[in-house]
Amino acid sequence: MADKIQGILTPTLVPLDAKGQVNEPEYRRFLNWLIDSGVHGLYPNGSTGEFTRLTAEERRRIAKITCEEAKGRVPVLAGAAEANTRETIKACEAYYEYGARAVAIVSPIYYRLAPDSVYAYFAEIAQNSPIDVTLYNIPLFASPIDLGTITRLASEFPRIVGIKDSSGDVAFMMRMIAAIRPVRTEFSFLTGWDVVLTPMMITGCDGGTNASSNVVPELTRKLYDLNRAGRYEEAMVLQFRIQELFDHMLNLYEFPDGFRMGAELRGFRMGHGRQPLTAKQETYKESLANILQCMLSSNDLAAPPPGGCAPKSIGRGDLESIVFDVMNELERKGSLWKTR
Amino acid sequence: MADKIQGILTPTLVPLDAKGQVNEPEYRRFLNWLIDSGVHGLYPNGSTGEFTRLTAEERRRIAKITCEEAKGRVPVLAGAAEANTRETIKACEAYYEYGARAVAIVSPIYYRLAPDSVYAYFAEIAQNSPIDVTLYNIPLFASPIDLGTITRLASEFPRIVGIKDSSGDVAFMMRMIAAIRPVRTEFSFLTGWDVVLTPMMITGCDGGTNASSNVVPELTRKLYDLNRAGRYEEAMVLQFRIQELFDHMLNLYEFPDGFRMGAELRGFRMGHGRQPLTAKQETYKESLANILQCMLSSNDLAAPPPGGCAPKSIGRGDLESIVFDVMNELERKGSLWKTR
Amino acid sequence: MADKIQGILTPTLVPLDAKGQVNEPEYRRFLNWLIDSGVHGLYPNGSTGEFTRLTAEERRRIAKITCEEAKGRVPVLAGAAEANTRETIKACEAYYEYGARAVAIVSPIYYRLAPDSVYAYFAEIAQNSPIDVTLYNIPLFASPIDLGTITRLASEFPRIVGIKDSSGDVAFMMRMIAAIRPVRTEFSFLTGWDVVLTPMMITGCDGGTNASSNVVPELTRKLYDLNRAGRYEEAMVLQFRIQELFDHMLNLYEFPDGFRMGAELRGFRMGHGRQPLTAKQETYKESLANILQCMLSSNDLAAPPPGGCAPKSIGRGDLESIVFDVMNELERKGSLWKTR
Amino acid sequence: MADKIQGILTPTLVPLDAKGQVNEPEYRRFLNWLIDSGVHGLYPNGSTGEFTRLTAEERRRIAKITCEEAKGRVPVLAGAAEANTRETIKACEAYYEYGARAVAIVSPIYYRLAPDSVYAYFAEIAQNSPIDVTLYNIPLFASPIDLGTITRLASEFPRIVGIKDSSGDVAFMMRMIAAIRPVRTEFSFLTGWDVVLTPMMITGCDGGTNASSNVVPELTRKLYDLNRAGRYEEAMVLQFRIQELFDHMLNLYEFPDGFRMGAELRGFRMGHGRQPLTAKQETYKESLANILQCMLSSNDLAAPPPGGCAPKSIGRGDLESIVFDVMNELERKGSLWKTR
Repeated sequence: MADKIQGILTPTLVPLDAKGQVNEPEYRRFLNWLIDSGVHGLYPNGSTGEFTRLTAEERRRIAKITCEEAKGRVPVLAGAAEANTRETIKACEAYYEYGARAVAIVSPIYYRLAPDSVYAYFAEIAQNSPIDVTLYNIPLFASPIDLGTITRLASEFPRIVGIKDSSGDVAFMMRMIAAIRPVRTEFSFLTGWDVVLTPMMITGCDGGTNASSNVVPELTRKLYDLNRAGRYEEAMVLQFRIQELFDHMLNLYEFPDGFRMGAELRGFRMGHGRQPLTAKQETYKESLANILQCMLSSNDLAAPPPGGCAPKSIGRGDLESIVFDVMNELERKGSLWKTR
Repeated sequence: MADKIQGILTPTLVPLDAKGQVNEPEYRRFLNWLIDSGVHGLYPNGSTGEFTRLTAEERRRIAKITCEEAKGRVPVLAGAAEANTRETIKACEAYYEYGARAVAIVSPIYYRLAPDSVYAYFAEIAQNSPIDVTLYNIPLFASPIDLGTITRLASEFPRIVGIKDSSGDVAFMMRMIAAIRPVRTEFSFLTGWDVVLTPMMITGCDGGTNASSNVVPELTRKLYDLNRAGRYEEAMVLQFRIQELFDHMLNLYEFPDGFRMGAELRGFRMGHGRQPLTAKQETYKESLANILQCMLSSNDLAAPPPGGCAPKSIGRGDLESIVFDVMNELERKGSLWKTR
Repeated sequence: MADKIQGILTPTLVPLDAKGQVNEPEYRRFLNWLIDSGVHGLYPNGSTGEFTRLTAEERRRIAKITCEEAKGRVPVLAGAAEANTRETIKACEAYYEYGARAVAIVSPIYYRLAPDSVYAYFAEIAQNSPIDVTLYNIPLFASPIDLGTITRLASEFPRIVGIKDSSGDVAFMMRMIAAIRPVRTEFSFLTGWDVVLTPMMITGCDGGTNASSNVVPELTRKLYDLNRAGRYEEAMVLQFRIQELFDHMLNLYEFPDGFRMGAELRGFRMGHGRQPLTAKQETYKESLANILQCMLSSNDLAAPPPGGCAPKSIGRGDLESIVFDVMNELERKGSLWKTR
Repeated sequence: MADKIQGILTPTLVPLDAKGQVNEPEYRRFLNWLIDSGVHGLYPNGSTGEFTRLTAEERRRIAKITCEEAKGRVPVLAGAAEANTRETIKACEAYYEYGARAVAIVSPIYYRLAPDSVYAYFAEIAQNSPIDVTLYNIPLFASPIDLGTITRLASEFPRIVGIKDSSGDVAFMMRMIAAIRPVRTEFSFLTGWDVVLTPMMITGCDGGTNASSNVVPELTRKLYDLNRAGRYEEAMVLQFRIQELFDHMLNLYEFPDGFRMGAELRGFRMGHGRQPLTAKQETYKESLANILQCMLSSNDLAAPPPGGCAPKSIGRGDLESIVFDVMNELERKGSLWKTR
């Protein structure tokens, strides 16, 4: 049996050139930086990769490049949803050839299908795919996959090996784990909601496909490692920083433009996204740069910005949780746990 | 100035062959039947045409065939939304070459964009399209286009000539008309919600892109004509029949499979749609056939089914509205208004 | 059998004095003005009457005063929902004694109940009420009453004689009428959504419980009469004016504060509502006064404001519907249809 | 400064007698059992206490009885929302007299108010209440209190000392804590969503007002203690059991009838709730009894049911998390941590 899919799998952004075309050299450079920064896998053609704004040919190309760069180092989970099941299965075949570890298939988009139809859709793909399949549940954008349907699919199709859930609902994650893990111990549960990676992992979730790992891959990896080591309170100090960064990038921009801006600040020429930016969105770059630099500097990955950084302390404010503040202080001094 | 877009524009279903490919001869035969049955225009690549389940090449081909068959007889409003604005503008150029009257562009799908971003999206298309553009608002499936954004787009871009609204919200239609008609008298307001075509038209709406006109084009046309003639109470008798048919096709099937089944019952080989059918959906054919035949027979377009049809009367039940019952009786006797 | 409930039933606002107490003399004066202005009935303790912000004692008192003033002139439909079925049934008994024509019972509030529980709730009340009951569906604020539940209740309980629907969904109204009228011809369908009274009435709806009839009772009545006379196009000219007024009062204020302001402008001391007003809400009075005066003057009920009024024309802008513009012109000249 | 409100505060159910009246002796017996079982406080007149189905007099009486029984042992957080701010402030005054530690005020119900109005509502209460106030956010049933409004209220009014959030959204909890704790270290954050108490507490939340503490107060307390001790993985074993119990009681019944049934199974005569039960709801008692007994027996609080209990293991299924299974085993053997 293949390895379980776990850890931080970056849903990769796509750099574009001045003409709006995929900037292949920059994308390859970006992938290598992500791998070098410690992410456990790559997830091209996700929502962060704006798969719906790419042509079918571009999606193929993105998946191929990603597999080429990853080979022998980290697994690739490739988004393979196409216009219909036949086209999707063809993409599964292609990505199998490219050497991907598995594909991720979003629930049917645009039309909102009933549970039975969502089941029929994934069943047809699972029966015909030569490569392992992970379900992708993102009820905000696509037909929801409800608990009964997930459980039924996991129970009937060994080809389906995991689920990526982007609802951000911790209780829902617990319900999925409670229903499926007893019958499929190797089934993989991944969260796409960066803000709650720690709470999700304490419930038993296996990792995340987190958009912010495009921007701070070292820290998303560090957060994962702290969680796996059971060092949850230390993890929360970092988790709150990621929450601040994530919310800024999510709320002030159309998704995923804030994350594109963040990666730009890390030194990659991401170019303009394919959805026209509004004037307002253009103005948030400076405050994002500040948040990002403070976060990096408090983790010893950069110098602090000239203006300094506000202290961060979110602890319970009573004796028992003073540890929060101490950790935070230690973190600022750089004397704590470090990435590799 | 080109003619205002109005009347019944059928959002055409796509017949598929046994291999799941576009059945071109049957599609051409279907288009001719629609035109002969009196619809005012054709609207390929809409939601009813399952545009998101076609490949980009198939969408081009569908638009081209439709323009070829329509030429010289009825206008074509071609759905031209592609993966991004650049691809969409290319489709606009192609459909202009094919001879379409205008394109319909759905608001950005998958991601739910804020009003400013929806504005920026349509502005970029309007500035670059060689062909008139109609907005397509379907908040159930795509980013909503709010009243302020519609008004702003209509005021700034003469290239934008209308809106198709599938919200089914009569009050919203009134608000759009109140905001835009005073400054753009030729702007076209179309409803995609078949059940309320009459209430929409009494508010000033110019017609509909109604999925049920794939199944009963003669009657959708008749309904439109009654409304334009101000014969609203007669119209309502027919409107209630369309409501019954529409609800049956909408509620018992995944959209648009019920409408595919209806067109099949009118003699067209629609084939299986591209979303796998569930077992339950397969079982409703008989009751649909009965509703359809009663509807057609009460309008003199078919013999009644062997078991007969229940009488239909929805009038207010008081003296003043006894006209409803009389109309209904006359209608059943076939002595009333007839489709040319 | 008692008369069918139909026409315009005003959901009465409650004037408060400087101490925030019910201003009884002003409420009595207000009720008489409403009756004199032509409304067909009174509906105390509705959402417009802020029933949830009154104490149980105040609700009793309001219902009693309303019955006292209405007696012998118009029917009273009294909102009787209390904390639980036992208290609600007690209120039904009291309002029966006061001489109300029927009670209106909102679906259970706060908790969102499943259809079976909504059924059980109304069944218990229907079995124990000495007075006719109308259902009140307002899915925005209370447990929705779905089509199946309404049909079941209407079929099983003669005591239930109507429904007031405030969803504003014309298609839903049609579905209710199609399901219930064939078995309960005298069942009453009322809409609480002022903007679409005309579209609702063309579908067969029997009238409305319209908040704006607190402000322009003469015109809501006139609109109803035009609809009942089948003069739908004339009705729409007035309907668009009511839409403008309603939207202003609804969107710029917390409900029903805009309507309180409107009634204030008609000469009634409504006082401050019980939900604290924000500073912003206080500033819209002048523009509301202007809209209101233009509306009244175009219907010969007041002189135009010093600054004059913008012309209103929402017609289709083509030959066939030029009638819209003519009607509008005639209306402005005051030579058209007048209230009584 | 008064003590921070923290721990498990039971939102108390209300036992009713055969006539549907408050069963005072049984309620007093129930309160004592809760306190003896280790809960940190009592929260009468919450959603679990069906405050909207009680009369104003009954709410007073419930608060009074609760304070009488609690005195000197645990703090009382009394739900004080009434029909309007004036009545609410009167209730605050009364509960202050009764000796409550604080009141909880739900955001305005029925009408859905905008943020500014929610602010104005709580501001008026905070300025006039003689007793500390906690906000109660339950967006499913009442006007949502958004992040900006909570932050503004917490910053401006020392009288407001905490928030109870029943959204179940862990990310939202984190955002509240990040925004408020730096300026109000003693501000209390409580969750009303039992399933995620552990994930919430790892983020810094101070405890819960959990409906299931009416049924298994010993275990809710135990869960809290494990969390406060930082023993999160042990906590999760118990948390998954509470999830199973909670979901059963929540999903198969109208809220809070499942919890009433659960307390009944613990030996209290809860009587019928005030919302009529449907036939279906009556049938789930046996399976609930089984879940409950297995949960209690695995925690050494009861003998296992005759049919035995299925093993529970939700661990990650890899080496590192085998601890889950071991804990579970130990737990079943009763050799682990015990309540007091």
